[in-house]
Amino acid sequence: MSTTIFITGGARSGKSRLAERLAEGFGAPLCYIATGEARDGEMAERIDRHRQRRGSAWQTVEEPLQLGEAIRERDGRCRAILVDCITLWITNLLFHHDAVEPVLVEVRTLAELLPTLQTPLILVSNEVGMGIVPENALARSFRDLAGHTNQILAEASDEVYVTISGIPVKLK
Amino acid sequence: MSTTIFITGGARSGKSRLAERLAEGFGAPLCYIATGEARDGEMAERIDRHRQRRGSAWQTVEEPLQLGEAIRERDGRCRAILVDCITLWITNLLFHHDAVEPVLVEVRTLAELLPTLQTPLILVSNEVGMGIVPENALARSFRDLAGHTNQILAEASDEVYVTISGIPVKLK
Amino acid sequence: MSTTIFITGGARSGKSRLAERLAEGFGAPLCYIATGEARDGEMAERIDRHRQRRGSAWQTVEEPLQLGEAIRERDGRCRAILVDCITLWITNLLFHHDAVEPVLVEVRTLAELLPTLQTPLILVSNEVGMGIVPENALARSFRDLAGHTNQILAEASDEVYVTISGIPVKLK
Repeated sequence: MSTTIFITGGARSGKSRLAERLAEGFGAPLCYIATGEARDGEMAERIDRHRQRRGSAWQTVEEPLQLGEAIRERDGRCRAILVDCITLWITNLLFHHDAVEPVLVEVRTLAELLPTLQTPLILVSNEVGMGIVPENALARSFRDLAGHTNQILAEASDEVYVTISGIPVKLK
Repeated sequence: MSTTIFITGGARSGKSRLAERLAEGFGAPLCYIATGEARDGEMAERIDRHRQRRGSAWQTVEEPLQLGEAIRERDGRCRAILVDCITLWITNLLFHHDAVEPVLVEVRTLAELLPTLQTPLILVSNEVGMGIVPENALARSFRDLAGHTNQILAEASDEVYVTISGIPVKLK
Repeated sequence: MSTTIFITGGARSGKSRLAERLAEGFGAPLCYIATGEARDGEMAERIDRHRQRRGSAWQTVEEPLQLGEAIRERDGRCRAILVDCITLWITNLLFHHDAVEPVLVEVRTLAELLPTLQTPLILVSNEVGMGIVPENALARSFRDLAGHTNQILAEASDEVYVTISGIPVKLK
């Protein structure tokens, strides 16, 4: 049974950098699962910047929806698996299912997968629930879904960090 | 003189669950004061879900405005009083008074009530000030009011927690 | 070589009060550099309220853009310098340059100035990246810039605090 590390934090708070540093502590090769797709210029640029920062120890795959399968396929075949990020994954799932409940079912299925893995897994998520309540009902239900997802995955993880201004704070 | 516990956190970060768990540590019967009213389907569903989660040890009352009176009435008549949540209460007060200053007066009056209570009191609030500055002036002034309220009540409380991804962090 | 203290937090979370308290611990006279300009009533009122709270130990200057120069000019001429706040400074710079990259260059230049100062410096910033992702591309890029800025300055500082509901939490 391996370790799962869950990292949350605000925008540009140093989550990905912490995740990469923790992963590199496990050695090489490492597997990076990007849940974002390079659909627009902003996202393409972001993915490219992240890829440049990581060195040759990393193999990168893009998987917007079938995250559990992607993790299982690489389990036992690298020193650590990094998923960046959970919030984009549930965004993709919400567009795919067009409803919150099936997304939560997938999140719970992922949580059940965690204790069965052999390879250390690092999950990067986002804190999106500490701003003003959105007027838009869809944004409100996404915000609730994101908070709920973070609770489920943090509970199923062995270590939990929040990053603030680039500084990791260990919560568990 | 009893204990007041103040709990803040983002949307779906585990605030209510922590509050209920802490309250249940005081025994039964317990009093739950809901400041939200079941005006629309979204809120009715939320209240109902919370009510289902709590067991028979709980008596629930709804009080959108006269929170101090509601607390005083139950003081000494149960093992703990849980208020969920302060942010909805000040939202109701802001609609009622249509101005920020009288709301802050009521918040300060509540803060002065706290050290006079016999029964442990648990206040659930919300963190809404860590997102982008809202363009809307009303949202901006609500955000300031909510932050100010949290400061006043946290200062008057004996214990303060923030919940992040379901994990309570004790601040005081 | 002196100390730099970086303080972040949400709206009305007690950042300025903590900053003033920490500065006053260094003695008098003290220098306050306000990066906000009294352009509208809301900001004028806020600046005035802050000024009233501070006592006669303080000399206040307004500097919306040339922050590094303003700090250097006062270095060695008071017991501590307080800058309130970094987020307004980068907002002003973003309007001035109309692009993100030159703002980050200025932030990095400020970070390089910090270890050369003789006088203790306290920087107040804001946490704006923990709400829902803004729909507006400009707000999104500002949110990223603010997070990036906080990382750079927190890394260059000796002590870092986040305030939550008025309570300072030391991160570094």
